[in-house]
Amino acid sequence: MGEDARYRLLSMIDSPADLRRLPRSRLPAVADEVRRCVIETVAAAGGHFAANLGAVELAVALHYVYRTPHDLVVWDVGHQAYPHKILTGRREALRRVRRRGGPSGFPRREESPYDAFGVGHASTAIGAGLGMAVGAALRGEDRRVVAVIGDGGLTGGMAYEALNHAGHLGADLLVVLNDNEMSISPNVGALSRSLARLWASPLYGAVRAGGERALARMGPAGTLLREARRQVKGLLGPAAFFQELGFDYHGPVDGHDVETLVAVLARLRERRGPQLLHVVTRKGKGYPPAEADPVAWHATGPFDPAAGRAVSGAGGATWTEVFGAWICEAAAREPRLVAITPAMREGSGLVAFAERFPQRYFDVGIAEQHAVTFAAGLACAGLRPVVAIYSTFLQRAYDQLIHDVALQGLPVLFAIDRAGVVGPDGPTHAGAFDLTYLRCIPGLTVMAPADAAECRAMLEHALALEGPAAVRWPRGPAPAGREAAPLAHGRGVVVRRGGSGVALLVFGALLEAALAAAEALDATVAGMRFVKPLDETLLRELAATHRVLVTLEDNVVAGGAGGAVAEALAGAGPRLLHLGLPDRFQGHGSRGELLAEAGLDAEGIVRAVRRAAGGVRRRPALRGLR
Amino acid sequence: MGEDARYRLLSMIDSPADLRRLPRSRLPAVADEVRRCVIETVAAAGGHFAANLGAVELAVALHYVYRTPHDLVVWDVGHQAYPHKILTGRREALRRVRRRGGPSGFPRREESPYDAFGVGHASTAIGAGLGMAVGAALRGEDRRVVAVIGDGGLTGGMAYEALNHAGHLGADLLVVLNDNEMSISPNVGALSRSLARLWASPLYGAVRAGGERALARMGPAGTLLREARRQVKGLLGPAAFFQELGFDYHGPVDGHDVETLVAVLARLRERRGPQLLHVVTRKGKGYPPAEADPVAWHATGPFDPAAGRAVSGAGGATWTEVFGAWICEAAAREPRLVAITPAMREGSGLVAFAERFPQRYFDVGIAEQHAVTFAAGLACAGLRPVVAIYSTFLQRAYDQLIHDVALQGLPVLFAIDRAGVVGPDGPTHAGAFDLTYLRCIPGLTVMAPADAAECRAMLEHALALEGPAAVRWPRGPAPAGREAAPLAHGRGVVVRRGGSGVALLVFGALLEAALAAAEALDATVAGMRFVKPLDETLLRELAATHRVLVTLEDNVVAGGAGGAVAEALAGAGPRLLHLGLPDRFQGHGSRGELLAEAGLDAEGIVRAVRRAAGGVRRRPALRGLR
Repeated sequence: MGEDARYRLLSMIDSPADLRRLPRSRLPAVADEVRRCVIETVAAAGGHFAANLGAVELAVALHYVYRTPHDLVVWDVGHQAYPHKILTGRREALRRVRRRGGPSGFPRREESPYDAFGVGHASTAIGAGLGMAVGAALRGEDRRVVAVIGDGGLTGGMAYEALNHAGHLGADLLVVLNDNEMSISPNVGALSRSLARLWASPLYGAVRAGGERALARMGPAGTLLREARRQVKGLLGPAAFFQELGFDYHGPVDGHDVETLVAVLARLRERRGPQLLHVVTRKGKGYPPAEADPVAWHATGPFDPAAGRAVSGAGGATWTEVFGAWICEAAAREPRLVAITPAMREGSGLVAFAERFPQRYFDVGIAEQHAVTFAAGLACAGLRPVVAIYSTFLQRAYDQLIHDVALQGLPVLFAIDRAGVVGPDGPTHAGAFDLTYLRCIPGLTVMAPADAAECRAMLEHALALEGPAAVRWPRGPAPAGREAAPLAHGRGVVVRRGGSGVALLVFGALLEAALAAAEALDATVAGMRFVKPLDETLLRELAATHRVLVTLEDNVVAGGAGGAVAEALAGAGPRLLHLGLPDRFQGHGSRGELLAEAGLDAEGIVRAVRRAAGGVRRRPALRGLR
Repeated sequence: MGEDARYRLLSMIDSPADLRRLPRSRLPAVADEVRRCVIETVAAAGGHFAANLGAVELAVALHYVYRTPHDLVVWDVGHQAYPHKILTGRREALRRVRRRGGPSGFPRREESPYDAFGVGHASTAIGAGLGMAVGAALRGEDRRVVAVIGDGGLTGGMAYEALNHAGHLGADLLVVLNDNEMSISPNVGALSRSLARLWASPLYGAVRAGGERALARMGPAGTLLREARRQVKGLLGPAAFFQELGFDYHGPVDGHDVETLVAVLARLRERRGPQLLHVVTRKGKGYPPAEADPVAWHATGPFDPAAGRAVSGAGGATWTEVFGAWICEAAAREPRLVAITPAMREGSGLVAFAERFPQRYFDVGIAEQHAVTFAAGLACAGLRPVVAIYSTFLQRAYDQLIHDVALQGLPVLFAIDRAGVVGPDGPTHAGAFDLTYLRCIPGLTVMAPADAAECRAMLEHALALEGPAAVRWPRGPAPAGREAAPLAHGRGVVVRRGGSGVALLVFGALLEAALAAAEALDATVAGMRFVKPLDETLLRELAATHRVLVTLEDNVVAGGAGGAVAEALAGAGPRLLHLGLPDRFQGHGSRGELLAEAGLDAEGIVRAVRRAAGGVRRRPALRGLR
């Protein structure tokens, strides 16, 4: 087979046990094949890219040294897990990665026994790994645990909480710091600056190499300092940081030298207590365009590996671009506007803002909690902070939103991207809960735009409010928008009047599908615009003039916008039909596939209304449904 | 006046401006009066105590040196803010602290211009202060910002995120680390161990005093090390930690030596860039019983200051005690059970468990995010983790609950205390949102017990489930419970059959009030037990046989259990009346007062039902309501 010829070694590696049968000297060749396989896989299917290329040797070395799956390797965030998947029996399956029925782009426990922990959000690996290590010890199992975390993931507070706890417990845990000097955007934080400084400093090498000998020559002062050094274990830089947290620091080691990695890991596998291995890698390693611009190549659509240019995606402005353009315009008018992102400059549409308004742009690192409380502080200072954040990542800052922003009524604007159905990234990134967890917060205005024009109007409205507000939109292209009534606080609009006695109450981006369904159903369509405050006047009017109200949202039904309608009517209105995401975690696939699966495309809406209308006592006005 | 005689200095201090007119030599006497005032206030009113006594001199010194309220002082968590309140015009008002109409036990922006940031949950001060400092700089204001945080608060990840960001920005911010070697429980974490070690080490003093001279005597090796030291700025212990995060480290300083504090702060006020001052204080300082047992005296009911014994509270086992007894019994039977608390051993009822099962007890520090992901890791290892946590603190770990536990279907039991109306602690601690933010999560079982017997049964049931579950209960005494049908998954029970056509559907601890109301209304009462999955069979039965269904919960109505009922009926059932917490943040006061204010006592329920029934078309069955 041509394939076998190109993957001579990988074709013999169905599991890490096969890998471990090879002599160590063959590992560089294995790594080369893994790297080629990553490039071909992502070129064909799209997905996360640069981080995967950076973790090739690490994956090979870890599976070579550790007895996976008995030993456990937890990959933080999972942007770097393709090499691991390739080595654990999923090389062929990866061709369908991130598609419906294919493997996830992230490790998932249900997918493989080698995926010790499901990930997607950053900074969880140390805490999860610590739980596994402590659990193994309690159960008397001789099992080693390794958590692999990037320097970006280390900016998340929970990583620090876990390090601090692991050091306190003295647990048997290896943390591999995969230091590529950037997370998704170039990295943020004093600590990562210190990591970078370490490499730049010739002093570092000199002291590490000659420190012991130098101290020995010093006599009594040397003894004092050696004692001091023994006590805190490391003198300089990041080593001191980790040692303060109770870890033995090792490294830095070249993360692309697989044989050295194997030698170091083999030694560390025998060490007890919390160990930290600092590995330096390069994002995009082995694919020159990605090495040159790892931010652009963090994730990609399908591309031609030879030409090295990303194949362009679908046309039309995305919601993200609509927001990105708005915030630049608004900032030019409103000097108090400042923008905050937790390490998602590109994904949140803030590239132009960051360039035009560098003093008013704050990338806080992968630190959602801090992003929100920092914004609260900025609001106290009289500014108008805009927190640009993904729906699922805002879950990380839920308490800060309640306790630091809403309780104090501070004018912070949450610009929530990736709400609702997200698509290929799967359940870890599906923004399925925000309408529920937001609308219960007193004093928070919650809006969901149906199109680009409405999105701009809502952002503008939010910025003018004296209290907190959220505007949430999905991934992908935004409909341009139609002529519509101007936005008024807490008011929806009737977009179409139908004659069938059915009204579709649409909360956000499913308006297009609703209008198509309404044609088939001869239904009324209302763009509700505000989830909170709900337009109860419009609701009462629609309830009085229709026999079925259908609520439509790309949020779980439980507690969502449809729930708000049901609570408001309290059984006094007509029959309700709540269409939204089902009460289970979403899979991965294209956004269209997942929406259709949830019955949230036009066809699904028509089907559901017809089915429900059959359950309603027939009245003449319902004729139009059949 | 007798009062003026006892508070000779304080009676002249209506604001910090008055304080600043005193000579520095009078400050120890001011501190003595503040301390006496704290003791008398808490002895009379109850409240947080030991931390307030530890922060007396710090409050005096900060208000003396900084030009508050133009300069901003942010107190983390606020357990230590009474001295600050006493010095900022609220000495008299404090007699009514934590009561309805009286001042909050915590700083609140709406209460005073001196309360720069509202707090209650730990670890927010650095991020908020950083926002204020950056905001002041952007607006060109010459304003100094100080964040005061305890060593306990420093175990929270968001504090680290904020330090890292402040160091990165090089912002003008002073962080005062108020190090009393404990948070609420004795402290946790490798870092705090390191802080403690610092004090214990004679080496520390020697090196700090003699380090420069010793290095100078070393010749070339000394030069190399001096250069190294200059680069990282501090050689030893916590200093290196903070310096890695970009802060200049100062201290440690005796936090009860007010004149030295003033001298040091005056110097630091002129420094630019991120500064950290390490102040060592003693919790309970100046009140010997509290010094001897600061954990017991963290917070207290009213007590006799001379006798030094806490006045005992209301009798009867609390919900917390019911849980504490259950978990010990269960652990004796189930070796896989482990318990995790984010620094709330006492408050969560885990004192006995920690003593009996020290190997299976994990206090992770004030680190809710890590608590939950660590539990997920333990569950992966085959254990049965119980996360004992307050409702509002679980907000801190919302993403971890979704992403790390529920998405993977891991059997973690959330034992949620302080749900619903909490009382004197006010809105930061009111567990008003958990039913909403929990019931939207797929695969999570959510239960609310009506009494102690049901609570035990639910905990037992949750422990036996193969997936995640939450049991939530309020603060205070638990009704013992009555003879009732055994617990079955997703099933409620009819507790009383009435003849008025009204049914009260009760979710949790308001059952007693509901039964009293039902007597007046001749209403049916159902103990629903499960918020998720909802007992739709019982619901349909009640809907078919009653004309009004009243849902009752101590959660906000928005998206809560009542919303679940409304969604399930979807307009097909009878009229609904949703009773729950209103759509605003709760004030403080006694639990009874707040419940009554929300209309959730028996009288309020009767009133609301009668009012709603008037709006329902009269039918014979409704007669009983009048």
